[in-house]
Amino acid sequence: MRSSSHSPTRLRGVFSPVLTPFKPDLSPSVERFVKHCHWLLGQGVGLSVFGTNSEANSLSVGEKRSLLDALLASGAAPHRLMPGTGACALTDTIELTRHAVAAGCAGVLMLPPFYYKGVSDEGLFRSFASVIDCVADERLRIYLYHIPQVSQVCISLALIERLLKAYPCAIAGVKDSSGDWSNTAAMLEAFQPAGFDVFAGSESFLLQTLRGGGAGCITATGNVNPGPIVELFRHWQDADADARQASLNATRAVFQKRPMIAAMKSTIAWQSGDAAWATLRPPLVELDAEQARQLVAELQAVGFAMPGASALSASV
Amino acid sequence: MRSSSHSPTRLRGVFSPVLTPFKPDLSPSVERFVKHCHWLLGQGVGLSVFGTNSEANSLSVGEKRSLLDALLASGAAPHRLMPGTGACALTDTIELTRHAVAAGCAGVLMLPPFYYKGVSDEGLFRSFASVIDCVADERLRIYLYHIPQVSQVCISLALIERLLKAYPCAIAGVKDSSGDWSNTAAMLEAFQPAGFDVFAGSESFLLQTLRGGGAGCITATGNVNPGPIVELFRHWQDADADARQASLNATRAVFQKRPMIAAMKSTIAWQSGDAAWATLRPPLVELDAEQARQLVAELQAVGFAMPGASALSASV
Repeated sequence: MRSSSHSPTRLRGVFSPVLTPFKPDLSPSVERFVKHCHWLLGQGVGLSVFGTNSEANSLSVGEKRSLLDALLASGAAPHRLMPGTGACALTDTIELTRHAVAAGCAGVLMLPPFYYKGVSDEGLFRSFASVIDCVADERLRIYLYHIPQVSQVCISLALIERLLKAYPCAIAGVKDSSGDWSNTAAMLEAFQPAGFDVFAGSESFLLQTLRGGGAGCITATGNVNPGPIVELFRHWQDADADARQASLNATRAVFQKRPMIAAMKSTIAWQSGDAAWATLRPPLVELDAEQARQLVAELQAVGFAMPGASALSASV
Repeated sequence: MRSSSHSPTRLRGVFSPVLTPFKPDLSPSVERFVKHCHWLLGQGVGLSVFGTNSEANSLSVGEKRSLLDALLASGAAPHRLMPGTGACALTDTIELTRHAVAAGCAGVLMLPPFYYKGVSDEGLFRSFASVIDCVADERLRIYLYHIPQVSQVCISLALIERLLKAYPCAIAGVKDSSGDWSNTAAMLEAFQPAGFDVFAGSESFLLQTLRGGGAGCITATGNVNPGPIVELFRHWQDADADARQASLNATRAVFQKRPMIAAMKSTIAWQSGDAAWATLRPPLVELDAEQARQLVAELQAVGFAMPGASALSASV
């Protein structure tokens, strides 16, 4: 099905939608961003910069381009990068995708256009097809981003089938953030055998996804709990895999019952000693002092730690 | 409540979210756009360029800036312009708003940031406040754009009250596209007497809105049926106002039961004799030939016409 001549190494493992740190004036903190990315790479986590948990849709195209350029200039390996490039506007998606491919990124994570609701599969097919045709680069590898509870626009199995038929090389896989295991299972069954790589949208489904032949997970909590998640990926066939999964679930639950982005940023502020890490860009808001205190107490109760987090503090 | 020293003439009347015509290559057709805008102005319709029915969220910031610049260069009067400037990204909203205010536009129509769902009023307040504080121009007049069925983010009465208290001069009014008359009525009662101008989101509620003291309507079908809608605005206190409203409703019903943007563009293609007008940018799709034929038949049955529509065809 795939043209092997143009296939780079397929992406596998644990990726994280990298949190975007902001300065107190709400501009992106390039220094914190680059430090956090290298800390994640050091833990074995690939970088899905500009995902939902990155507040990516609160950033302009220019801000995303600048952050990616800074990350590459810092020496981050492009083959570990899967930046989010899907936007409402076709022209924005094309610009961001072209930029990522030109930079050598291994793949891109692509939301469907998400302003208009109730759009047809025909319209979504045309959107993705227009991007692929305009970027016109055989290195392009698109991971479709299915997160209907946020985007409110569904990437159906029928749409994936049609896209794979038309663009077997460019359509590389999916991040299924629906939280609906039956949907992930259907994708694994229908498309993974043909080389379409299925990533679970959180580590909650990591073990199930790997047992189903999938490629790994792209998970928000990879920002704060990368080590143990990567360990499960490396040892998923070991006897203690279910116990590892249960432990991951317990940690995740602490974050998941709160506004997750705010909770993760608050956690890094605590672990790094850099209070500015807690900043979010509107419309999202940070935890208040009491919420932050309760979060710390609960994380301590499950033995949570971020080894080396002092490296995440910024000099300014 | 308002500082009269900085108040320009308040906007009233019928506005239209101007359709954005595209060339066959999906780039904006500046020529068709400018012609259509001047045709609308000639019918007495103000220009809410870059609204939902403009496919504005399928356009990049640069495309919107260029179209507005071309429109102003063509001689369109800034005091009849209310461009949409609300985007997901705070920085995009600030850039577009600053550009519109600098160009002298009478107001801006502002969506809330719409990617994240379930956001708090605190987060939305901070979004609008950040825009107002960053643009920092006493000429800024924001019309809040409430269209929860598409944006999935609600502009509540409590949020409006808080914004009006903090920014009585910059918060100028609202477009209520919820389709929920009880919400429009509540806005009219709570805020219109204080000088917050309520526009109905379609002509269906034009007469009710004017009787309730409101400012007019901002309506998609203003693109194709401007004359009769403006006539109702001008004669809403006459004895035949209810009959005029009923006639408007009959025409609107023909468009509303179809994908409206596609139907309106198909109608202009028919009336102008310029087939390229039917083009939409993905993810939206045009009517097929049979759908277009049925639309024409139904419009002819209600005596629909667009006087002077031949002026809307393009030379290229």
